Amino acid sequence: FRRIPKNIKLRLPLLCIILEVILIVLFGTLVEYNDDTDAKLWNENRNHSATRNDHENEFYYRYPSFQDVHVMIFVGFGFLMTFLQRYGFSSVGFNFLIAAFSLQWATLMQGFFHGLHHGKIHVGVTSMINADFCTGSVLISFGAVLGKTSPVQLLVMAIFEVTLFAVNEFILLSIFGANDAGGSMTIHTFGAYFGLMVTRVLYRPNLDKSKHRNSSVYHSDLFAMIGTIYLWMFWPSFNSAITNYGDPQHRTAMNTYYSLAACTLATFAFSALVNPEGKLDMVHIQNAALAGGVAVGTAGEMMLTAFGSMIVGFLAGTISVLGYKYLTPVLESKLKIQDTCGIHNLHGMPGVLGAVVGSVTAALASPEVYGHGLQRVFADVETGKWNPQSKGGFQAISLAVTLGMALFGGLITGLILKLPIYGAPPDTQCFEDGLYWEVPGEEESQHELYEVATSNEVEKLSS
Amino acid sequence: FRRIPKNIKLRLPLLCIILEVILIVLFGTLVEYNDDTDAKLWNENRNHSATRNDHENEFYYRYPSFQDVHVMIFVGFGFLMTFLQRYGFSSVGFNFLIAAFSLQWATLMQGFFHGLHHGKIHVGVTSMINADFCTGSVLISFGAVLGKTSPVQLLVMAIFEVTLFAVNEFILLSIFGANDAGGSMTIHTFGAYFGLMVTRVLYRPNLDKSKHRNSSVYHSDLFAMIGTIYLWMFWPSFNSAITNYGDPQHRTAMNTYYSLAACTLATFAFSALVNPEGKLDMVHIQNAALAGGVAVGTAGEMMLTAFGSMIVGFLAGTISVLGYKYLTPVLESKLKIQDTCGIHNLHGMPGVLGAVVGSVTAALASPEVYGHGLQRVFADVETGKWNPQSKGGFQAISLAVTLGMALFGGLITGLILKLPIYGAPPDTQCFEDGLYWEVPGEEESQHELYEVATSNEVEKLSS
Amino acid sequence: FRRIPKNIKLRLPLLCIILEVILIVLFGTLVEYNDDTDAKLWNENRNHSATRNDHENEFYYRYPSFQDVHVMIFVGFGFLMTFLQRYGFSSVGFNFLIAAFSLQWATLMQGFFHGLHHGKIHVGVTSMINADFCTGSVLISFGAVLGKTSPVQLLVMAIFEVTLFAVNEFILLSIFGANDAGGSMTIHTFGAYFGLMVTRVLYRPNLDKSKHRNSSVYHSDLFAMIGTIYLWMFWPSFNSAITNYGDPQHRTAMNTYYSLAACTLATFAFSALVNPEGKLDMVHIQNAALAGGVAVGTAGEMMLTAFGSMIVGFLAGTISVLGYKYLTPVLESKLKIQDTCGIHNLHGMPGVLGAVVGSVTAALASPEVYGHGLQRVFADVETGKWNPQSKGGFQAISLAVTLGMALFGGLITGLILKLPIYGAPPDTQCFEDGLYWEVPGEEESQHELYEVATSNEVEKLSS
Repeated sequence: FRRIPKNIKLRLPLLCIILEVILIVLFGTLVEYNDDTDAKLWNENRNHSATRNDHENEFYYRYPSFQDVHVMIFVGFGFLMTFLQRYGFSSVGFNFLIAAFSLQWATLMQGFFHGLHHGKIHVGVTSMINADFCTGSVLISFGAVLGKTSPVQLLVMAIFEVTLFAVNEFILLSIFGANDAGGSMTIHTFGAYFGLMVTRVLYRPNLDKSKHRNSSVYHSDLFAMIGTIYLWMFWPSFNSAITNYGDPQHRTAMNTYYSLAACTLATFAFSALVNPEGKLDMVHIQNAALAGGVAVGTAGEMMLTAFGSMIVGFLAGTISVLGYKYLTPVLESKLKIQDTCGIHNLHGMPGVLGAVVGSVTAALASPEVYGHGLQRVFADVETGKWNPQSKGGFQAISLAVTLGMALFGGLITGLILKLPIYGAPPDTQCFEDGLYWEVPGEEESQHELYEVATSNEVEKLSS
Repeated sequence: FRRIPKNIKLRLPLLCIILEVILIVLFGTLVEYNDDTDAKLWNENRNHSATRNDHENEFYYRYPSFQDVHVMIFVGFGFLMTFLQRYGFSSVGFNFLIAAFSLQWATLMQGFFHGLHHGKIHVGVTSMINADFCTGSVLISFGAVLGKTSPVQLLVMAIFEVTLFAVNEFILLSIFGANDAGGSMTIHTFGAYFGLMVTRVLYRPNLDKSKHRNSSVYHSDLFAMIGTIYLWMFWPSFNSAITNYGDPQHRTAMNTYYSLAACTLATFAFSALVNPEGKLDMVHIQNAALAGGVAVGTAGEMMLTAFGSMIVGFLAGTISVLGYKYLTPVLESKLKIQDTCGIHNLHGMPGVLGAVVGSVTAALASPEVYGHGLQRVFADVETGKWNPQSKGGFQAISLAVTLGMALFGGLITGLILKLPIYGAPPDTQCFEDGLYWEVPGEEESQHELYEVATSNEVEKLSS
Repeated sequence: FRRIPKNIKLRLPLLCIILEVILIVLFGTLVEYNDDTDAKLWNENRNHSATRNDHENEFYYRYPSFQDVHVMIFVGFGFLMTFLQRYGFSSVGFNFLIAAFSLQWATLMQGFFHGLHHGKIHVGVTSMINADFCTGSVLISFGAVLGKTSPVQLLVMAIFEVTLFAVNEFILLSIFGANDAGGSMTIHTFGAYFGLMVTRVLYRPNLDKSKHRNSSVYHSDLFAMIGTIYLWMFWPSFNSAITNYGDPQHRTAMNTYYSLAACTLATFAFSALVNPEGKLDMVHIQNAALAGGVAVGTAGEMMLTAFGSMIVGFLAGTISVLGYKYLTPVLESKLKIQDTCGIHNLHGMPGVLGAVVGSVTAALASPEVYGHGLQRVFADVETGKWNPQSKGGFQAISLAVTLGMALFGGLITGLILKLPIYGAPPDTQCFEDGLYWEVPGEEESQHELYEVATSNEVEKLSS
């Protein structure tokens, strides 16, 4: 029995400290309050213009949505991944760590690419939502490598993924003028294919040595349902969080609500249908029921109608269950893609579906349907450059660029993560909290405790 | 050992798919965006009227309340019912399924009865809240039959219950002009007595064959407390979600907050008081502490005062605990009502109390107390038909109608559910997830895992 | 074997009933709706002034924040304390009880001290937030005595602590004109040192007889993480809940968000660093990661900048982990302070840090930085009495007064709680639910259940 070498044990703490110090220095140099959070600027505006009353501060339009998104990132993703029997601490804990890092790093990267103001990054509730969105993308990738990576690897992955996310987002939104408020492309497709490529590069041929731990137990599945239900409930807030005020925000939330409801019925139907005994599978319910939110991430703000949303949701739930049942095993055996959470089924395919739906819905947009609301959904109407066909085309090109960026970025990042310097778990120790956490001992025998509780010791209650 | 016949195993998937296809077709035919969600309509209004700024979109008044209600429906009800030791998957999962179906069906039924616009149903955040409310009623009934019904039965129950809910709601709100913003009558009384009648018709004389599973274990009670606490915290949002803007919404939330606080102290007091050893009972804490929210569901928007709310809450908690202790066993033994969750104590009696309190509070309403706010609470003031005594009378009649509709509807629905075609569990298999779910195996021996984690395998950490 | 004497068993119920009756009488005598919740007053204002539209009701500015605070109080604190293996019912349940009592009592005490209106206490959403804040302070103290006190003791503690909290808050905010929107001093420092003094007075030399129960098990740590994550996510709402509308509320939420993110990285870093094997400790992650929220509770509404917030958060996480590792054992062995949850590390030291940061940030405030926003943060600017140095001084004095009030109040309260009349648990029965709760029996053998589920009984499915 040998001690862990000191240089291994120091890697996580030193990386955390160095990263945070760099973040603090960059924030000190580059970040400023925006017009709605700065005491001087907000109150100057208020005095000079009758229309900037306090209730018009973006805080009141966006903060409730932000909090719902925040819950999805930390509780939703965190608990969704606790389904593994011996990886609950790591699922919630590493999710917490890499999310707390990524949201800071994303603020810098997105601020840098989305427009500096005299060399400064301006922050407010919208930048907080965007940073959480970017973080979501990293957590999607985390789902693919769950149980097979050290926290150091995860932080390194986050550094690269956040950076590439910001580049891709810049190309899509600022160069192509694409619509993607709920992130079918920028968040889900990008995060999924990035993560799948990383896990492909990190392929472990002997992973079946940890197979007995790569499954759930009864209570771990219930913890995971906490994550599922919160993701499901708050997805309408996610997709609508950064749409325009008024009808777009309202409409996006409602479209997402209907898409998810239809998706849930499809998920239950197909989960029972593909099971030899007609039983439901928790893996499907926990994941595929959410695909409806992913698939209206682009078109949700458009005039998709409840009808359209439900069709999209139904399709998303269907392909997601079928993916879990038939595609995931093939990806693993043929393509050597070990996808722990099945992100290809929850974020990959539904994300691509969402991009296609968004492209078609944009190509069908017309002033007859949108009226004066057209420019509130498609910002380039005002610049006169808008026509629906080219808009639909740019949406489609955006999907292609996203796939390319994700696969290329995942390849490079995967190769970097393959270096044997991060304390990755051995094949026999995957899906195991004990490597990185102090794990508590067994519970006291319950029988013994009951005895005590009802015994004559109770007499001794001070009285 | 025989295989499950194929026609049994296909029933749930086929029913889900058929229902969703019908819903999609009906939504495509009948449903339109309302003035606040349609791009054209909202922006026309904005241009023609100075008063319709974006912050006046109903989204900003109602969406935070909607999200709280949504949490109550999916997390609150879902986890409250996980207290059973072997029925956690079904509690959360079937709750999820029937809620996702019911909210779509309720949108159609409520839209149909509450006023079509040129033959179309208009949807927005208010219709979303109302659909969630109707869903809540179905989930209350689910509590009575929990563990004893197949998912197919639950969906069939939801079809009928949602329909009758919409009819009853139409009679109360549109014909009688009754007040019931938080649904003491429409949601709680209706859902409870409907469910009690259904479970009466489905009486199982040999249910004690599954008695050993009809109880909690330590961790299942903690999961149930997640449900309880979320219901408790967000009940102020529930009762205020569709009241008028401004003072009524504010006042309703506050009245509910005080009612619940007083109810909680009553619950702890009487739970200990009725126990031979003075110990607290989790069943009471999980359920009776919520009765205060039910009991101010009608009067909460009125000038009930904090004082009045606390008295009502205290009474509700008291009768609820006493009901669990003394009434539920009698209902089962004498009236053959097997009420798994004790919905009579949480929703039935407190709902009736709430209706009575609402009737009395309405009968005492006066312009001296409400000032110009009178018509914002009692809409019929404007039509000149209002006088407090007749108002109080209509509130009381509304209770009677609700009880009649619920019992009659529950009887018919129960008889339909008694048909032997839904794959209901046998008496020996009630309260058991294994019938409908793939249940995971036992956990790896913890001892073994710890050994591994601290063993010399750690040396092999790649470094 | 003797029965529990009847007078013991009656104490909790009688105390609850008497307290609630007193509360109801006092509310009936003293409490009125405020201008924003009273039907007459709100609608009079609306008619007389064009500026009081419904969307300006304080409900819409504050209610989403209130709900987040409410979640922190009931889910956050409640589940954070479920980490003990056999004290989950008491952690969530007693948290529920004393919070429900404290928020009612706090409404009266704070209303009494913060300004009566013609002898009446006016209530609305702001008083609800303030009552929840005061409740938070009691729950912090609960953390120190967790597992070692009866519910009767906890209620008695709450009576005294709420009262002294209101006095201290009155001195700080009304007499000194101090800023403390997020309660670094009034809530965290006060609650922590009050609780530490109480647990010191209640010192149990033989507590190691219950040592085997004073630890977590695997799933209890996951339940505790639910509490942690909710506290972490909603802390931005907590600190900003009662700041001024507009830029202060927006800025406070954002500063807290950055402080917590930086704190989390520091927590992971130092948790691994102080562990001999480089492993992470759940106790640190569950608690120290929250210290960043505590430490910006005073300065968060000021122009602290994201940069400053992150430095404060990083420091807070660091001292909190170091406190758990090195200070807590010393406090117990040398000073006889048995601090179950380590509140000194989460609320005590970070609270003092927050007070110091607030004092310094206030002393550096200038009209150049704040512009016309100065008086929206520092209310005494308008009265002309403001200058930054004296402001900073009053902030520092406020910390000293808070420490004095907390230690003195905790001493008196501890002595009162030491009386042998409250049914406190014996030393052998600490950290044990069975004394106060009906605890469910063992789970059915899972093996047996699986067998049943897959057995030929399934044939009997009605069909």
